[in-house]
Amino acid sequence: MKQALANRDGGRASFDRLRTSVGPVGQSVPVVDAYERVTGQVGYVLNVELPGMLAGRILRSPHPHARVLRVDASRAERLPGVVAVLTRADLEHPEALTPRYGRMLCDQTIVAVDRVRFVGDPVAAVAAVDEEVADEALDLIEVDYEPLPAVFEVDEALRPDAPLLHEPRPEVQPGLGHLAGAVAGANNLCGHFKLRRGDVEQGFAQADFVFEDTFRSPAVQHVSLEPHVTVAQYEGGRLTLWSSTQMPHAIRAQMATMFHLPQSKVRVIVHTLGGGYGAKGSLRLEPIASLLAWKARRPVKIVLRRAEEFVTVTKHAATVHVKTGVMRDGTLVARQMATYFNTGAYADIGPLVARNGGLAMVGPYRVPHVKIDSYAVWTNLVPAGAFRGFGVPQAAWAYESQMDMIAERLGMDPLELRRRNVVHDGDRHPSGQELEDLHFDELIEGAVASVAWQPGDAWWLRQAAAGGQDESRSRQARPSGRQPREAAALKGGPGSAAEPGGQGGRETSKRRGKAVTVIMKSTLTPSTSTASAKLNEDGSLDVATSSVEMGQGATTALAQLAAEAAELPYQRVRVSEPDTDVTPYDQQTSSSRTTFSMGTAVAQAAREVKRQVLELAAGLLEVGVDDLVARNGRVEVRGAPERGLDYGEVVRKGRRGNLLGQGACVTKGGLDPETGQGFASVHWHQATAACEVEVDTETGKIEVLKFDSGAFAGRMVNPRLCELQTEGNTLFGLGQALFEEMRYEDGQVVNQNLADYMIPSFKDVPGDLVSSILERAERGEVHGIGETSLPPVMAAIANAVYNAVGVRITDLPLTAEKVLAVLSAES
Amino acid sequence: MKQALANRDGGRASFDRLRTSVGPVGQSVPVVDAYERVTGQVGYVLNVELPGMLAGRILRSPHPHARVLRVDASRAERLPGVVAVLTRADLEHPEALTPRYGRMLCDQTIVAVDRVRFVGDPVAAVAAVDEEVADEALDLIEVDYEPLPAVFEVDEALRPDAPLLHEPRPEVQPGLGHLAGAVAGANNLCGHFKLRRGDVEQGFAQADFVFEDTFRSPAVQHVSLEPHVTVAQYEGGRLTLWSSTQMPHAIRAQMATMFHLPQSKVRVIVHTLGGGYGAKGSLRLEPIASLLAWKARRPVKIVLRRAEEFVTVTKHAATVHVKTGVMRDGTLVARQMATYFNTGAYADIGPLVARNGGLAMVGPYRVPHVKIDSYAVWTNLVPAGAFRGFGVPQAAWAYESQMDMIAERLGMDPLELRRRNVVHDGDRHPSGQELEDLHFDELIEGAVASVAWQPGDAWWLRQAAAGGQDESRSRQARPSGRQPREAAALKGGPGSAAEPGGQGGRETSKRRGKAVTVIMKSTLTPSTSTASAKLNEDGSLDVATSSVEMGQGATTALAQLAAEAAELPYQRVRVSEPDTDVTPYDQQTSSSRTTFSMGTAVAQAAREVKRQVLELAAGLLEVGVDDLVARNGRVEVRGAPERGLDYGEVVRKGRRGNLLGQGACVTKGGLDPETGQGFASVHWHQATAACEVEVDTETGKIEVLKFDSGAFAGRMVNPRLCELQTEGNTLFGLGQALFEEMRYEDGQVVNQNLADYMIPSFKDVPGDLVSSILERAERGEVHGIGETSLPPVMAAIANAVYNAVGVRITDLPLTAEKVLAVLSAES
Repeated sequence: MKQALANRDGGRASFDRLRTSVGPVGQSVPVVDAYERVTGQVGYVLNVELPGMLAGRILRSPHPHARVLRVDASRAERLPGVVAVLTRADLEHPEALTPRYGRMLCDQTIVAVDRVRFVGDPVAAVAAVDEEVADEALDLIEVDYEPLPAVFEVDEALRPDAPLLHEPRPEVQPGLGHLAGAVAGANNLCGHFKLRRGDVEQGFAQADFVFEDTFRSPAVQHVSLEPHVTVAQYEGGRLTLWSSTQMPHAIRAQMATMFHLPQSKVRVIVHTLGGGYGAKGSLRLEPIASLLAWKARRPVKIVLRRAEEFVTVTKHAATVHVKTGVMRDGTLVARQMATYFNTGAYADIGPLVARNGGLAMVGPYRVPHVKIDSYAVWTNLVPAGAFRGFGVPQAAWAYESQMDMIAERLGMDPLELRRRNVVHDGDRHPSGQELEDLHFDELIEGAVASVAWQPGDAWWLRQAAAGGQDESRSRQARPSGRQPREAAALKGGPGSAAEPGGQGGRETSKRRGKAVTVIMKSTLTPSTSTASAKLNEDGSLDVATSSVEMGQGATTALAQLAAEAAELPYQRVRVSEPDTDVTPYDQQTSSSRTTFSMGTAVAQAAREVKRQVLELAAGLLEVGVDDLVARNGRVEVRGAPERGLDYGEVVRKGRRGNLLGQGACVTKGGLDPETGQGFASVHWHQATAACEVEVDTETGKIEVLKFDSGAFAGRMVNPRLCELQTEGNTLFGLGQALFEEMRYEDGQVVNQNLADYMIPSFKDVPGDLVSSILERAERGEVHGIGETSLPPVMAAIANAVYNAVGVRITDLPLTAEKVLAVLSAES
Repeated sequence: MKQALANRDGGRASFDRLRTSVGPVGQSVPVVDAYERVTGQVGYVLNVELPGMLAGRILRSPHPHARVLRVDASRAERLPGVVAVLTRADLEHPEALTPRYGRMLCDQTIVAVDRVRFVGDPVAAVAAVDEEVADEALDLIEVDYEPLPAVFEVDEALRPDAPLLHEPRPEVQPGLGHLAGAVAGANNLCGHFKLRRGDVEQGFAQADFVFEDTFRSPAVQHVSLEPHVTVAQYEGGRLTLWSSTQMPHAIRAQMATMFHLPQSKVRVIVHTLGGGYGAKGSLRLEPIASLLAWKARRPVKIVLRRAEEFVTVTKHAATVHVKTGVMRDGTLVARQMATYFNTGAYADIGPLVARNGGLAMVGPYRVPHVKIDSYAVWTNLVPAGAFRGFGVPQAAWAYESQMDMIAERLGMDPLELRRRNVVHDGDRHPSGQELEDLHFDELIEGAVASVAWQPGDAWWLRQAAAGGQDESRSRQARPSGRQPREAAALKGGPGSAAEPGGQGGRETSKRRGKAVTVIMKSTLTPSTSTASAKLNEDGSLDVATSSVEMGQGATTALAQLAAEAAELPYQRVRVSEPDTDVTPYDQQTSSSRTTFSMGTAVAQAAREVKRQVLELAAGLLEVGVDDLVARNGRVEVRGAPERGLDYGEVVRKGRRGNLLGQGACVTKGGLDPETGQGFASVHWHQATAACEVEVDTETGKIEVLKFDSGAFAGRMVNPRLCELQTEGNTLFGLGQALFEEMRYEDGQVVNQNLADYMIPSFKDVPGDLVSSILERAERGEVHGIGETSLPPVMAAIANAVYNAVGVRITDLPLTAEKVLAVLSAES
């Protein structure tokens, strides 16, 4: 990981960084809470303790689908130490409580009412003096179930005779119809996104070749180190929540609706999260904790155990059918996709994930004819929700795998195929939006250089070269020995045994392969962030935002942006934690949007403060505002820097107590629900992955030797944080590429712990791990780097594996068993 | 107390209330936390618990004045359960800590360094796992003292040969020199306020009579039900304090200076106080708790015990010499006063108390020639600080007692004397400020009516009437049988035995008397309050202020003002608690300033929100802003109310997340330090007290039968809260009039508990207790009622006692023993 810095500072010329300022932005200042982090002093919500606080525990369904016949909590209620038991009977207070909720569709209840819909569905809950008593009480709650037929796979769920999870169809949340997709009828579809451009049938007719492939990726876990935690207190008609959430204002709004309170009587306080990755959006523990607190009239804390995390929220398993029409020279002309996101028992944000994945399906390529259908489907599995990348990793896994498969079929260099089709400024996204500020050429060449990619690194070109110059040429014209327009087999790898890959004929079972992939990703659009700032009497600045610090360094980056805009030393700035009573609205901390969206709002608030400083100082110094310049926390008269005042002096002499500024970033946007045409993204995240792997042909084991994640950052706020974010993406993607997978049996997760569910360890970290952040600061715009570089990782590793040993795997993860199974079948 | 409402609503015509609005302001809505209060759920700082929190306890000096020779904490440090011991050795980190502090003068250290200066002065402190261990550790700290001569009374302290408490003279806090008074030299004066107007010597020369009297009032306790509490946490270079303070921003600023931190790294959070009354301003437990937390690297909580409250802060004992020149017809022509406030061992806010008392010394009367000297004096007693009324009760005790004494000497009706001299709009205060918005005529006539005051209720006029018509007339010309210009005796009561007072000759030992007093009081000027407001997506409003709710109903009144300004239903507004990280600056919650000063800021912020609502709605409705009207949380097109949007709809459709507004109230003002000339008060608090007492001539016991406190409120925000504040003042004053007094022996408080120190009980509440709030809403200005009606209470009771039994007591309290001593001496 050390290479990252070395590479960035001394590396390739194309990754130069243009500093527009010597100020706080662009400096790798340490994260503001570095000391607290390394000394274990961060005050997570997990650490919140209140007088009289009870422990809450949840009783969960053992059935994937069942009717709830009877819930009897009377024995539990009598257990000493139990203060409140919550069952469906408590939901019957229509004047005080609306127990149905859901981010997009009202398909969920606080605890199960008539049915349970997955193994783990909350049925009842207990608040007791401690967790042990609460657990004992859970055992005393009697529930009678009548099992119902269950569906687990999207194709089963969409059969006409499939059992329906939700009937009648739950209502869409007011105002969200256009996002959920216009789904009607009695079926298990909870969302359907459509993207239409050109005439895809005409496109396929024009194409020299049409390739159809299907790619699958499983449900995986977010595995935040900190589990979900909520502390709820309901006092005097006020509900206060300390919750590990990425969206305090959305939680507040939903809880206000649920408890029939004005939002001003619901307070959501968020401390630093120990990771989020999307898992900590939407209502999770808040409804149960709040209702327990309301019943108990005491604060209640619920902390999920790891096994419960596994049945709370997952990444969407997805099945992606890609049909691509391409000319002989590699020009893409048409793409049709049908994508099925398995969203589990409750819709949550699933329809939006399907939408975002659908929007990304064409990748960073010019394709004139596009027809995308992206579905979110209810099944009797653990609900899926937001997950780092929000549908785009599933999309990129498919299209970037297929790009290499297409190149092989055409006998082309896969990088050449990409270069030929990649979008440039002025091209249009399939949504119709004109694209700008694109830097794929630089990103791709950087990635190519970092692994020294050569056309001969492609398995098929190497094979061709080994077979003689002429054969190579002829194969280039007739792709991969297959007929044009032939549907690709599920496992489309070539049938020949592997040659030693790029190792000059060493006698070993290990083969190496490289690959480079590219993706483009939207950010949440439209979106809204607001912020305020106050300059104190000593010239220090308090910034109030509702952005959530979850280890990504948001508070650090925002402090840097505020410092720059206010012309203050960075050390004098402090960014608040969210507290919906007093910190301004933010839509959510997700979608790599905070540095851009909240950063814009914060900078505006800070500039407003600076404006007031100058105005006040002009009066105090008896000069015109235009005669003044603000610099490093001080106002000076132009040409006479000795005539000046520190910011603090200005506030004190002006007797203002503080100077307040406000800022907002409200972006426009929106898509037509029938065609997906419109304004899709306020800017586009652009990333590459370049890697080299080594595959042991005897064991099937894959080792990632080198990984270079490239990402475009606009103007960089904190280079080191950009790198760390990007490294995190690489490791997330590496886990999903190689071994992460939630395994179910009859709807029951069977690897519900971190012994059976594997995440990358330090031993899995590539020895050569580089984050190549591309900065183009000309526009001055800060992008936000967040999850940008995660989507291309999995296909990069899969393509590299193919180039190493010729094994094409289209369903993640790329386990040693799968590799070995293909190799064994061929030998 | 029930009479109050009846009286207000159906009472005297002059106390009518002009409603300018049917909106939230002017309604007696219940306090917002009423439910929490009556169910014991208010979250005081006392209830704050943090993981790993330690209990802090303080070792205090047993000497009133001593040199500290040795402090050895080694045995305490070894006690199991002790985590940190704080002694003077810990103050020696000049790079990290400035241990000297003080509100106006830097005369205090976190713990004693070279000397202790009063019995109770902190010498060391311990943080341990619980209070019991901490107490045991205190016993193990060895301290050697060398006693020094001590001074307790101001006259001793000001003798040239008096031992000096502070040498060299401590530095004045930067920028506060003009407030502290220009004191120099080696003496025990810590403040000297001067007010000069006209030529007092010339005035006395003109006067027909000059009367000199001296009045004394003792130190008393605030007796908040909640003691002082501070929780300190020092983590990652950030200091967080939960503290029971009335001035979060001032605490933050001082702690930032002490710990060499930018203010943005010091966070002060305040929950509802269980009473403040001025005791909870200034640094109290914050320095010790913070340093313990810093040493222990764990949170530390210190809760004072009641006995410690007695040695933490008191009301100033005061000695007031009044010399008044008066014409034969009662016209006041000159007043000279020398006032000595006993400020105890550390200056704290003493110089400002002396200043404020000095400013009030002339009362609500026209006096052309004025010379006031008001001194704050260091002595070896418990430090005195702010106390409800801030110097004015001591002043009013003197001048309103003397007004009756002057009337007697002139043989006048004391109300007539007041009517003749009381100020009216256009008159000038001795500071030179032109007075306006005065309503003394109405207030006085209201008070006169409430007790049916007749001239014959004055002891001397009744005596004269009893003695025959002629004698009465002649006594009117020659006051009280004394020579003009004769100095009044300390106990100036007439020497004749009491006649039954106003009871038609019933044969009983009980005598009744009535009195009416009047005062005028400044408010903190200049002052600064700022606020912000955010309108949420459902049309509810969050108001952020740093005003402290301490039972006075500030959050309720501010919510009403915000609701009115934003044109919202009151129920949708929530006012925050102070949190210096995110709530805007407020100078302090004191001086009856919050409703006016913060109310103005809050209303401005709310109006700004309304302006944005209208602007946004105009765009959404496609009309001009001027075509819209805002009403009750809704924007409507004029003349077409069906075309409208709720505020929440405006925010949602406008996709702003919230609408933010800001407001500030910055008042001008300031006085010349040599003459006291300038702008003294942004408005003037005006109050009366009318009472009837019954004195048992056999026991000396005084019973207050009826009390009517009158106060001018400008425009009333919440009538019921105005009454409750005023009732509170009456009871505070009643306690101070009749029995409250801190008693010292050799500098040691000897009634350091609520068994020996008496406060009023429900049995002491007058059977007929009325709060008469005078509202004049024409100007639309909200005044703030806070402590307005406390100052006249004590003199009213003393004057009524005189009118009952002819016993004039000039040193508070009016104990039965003192009454009986005079009666016995006379009989």
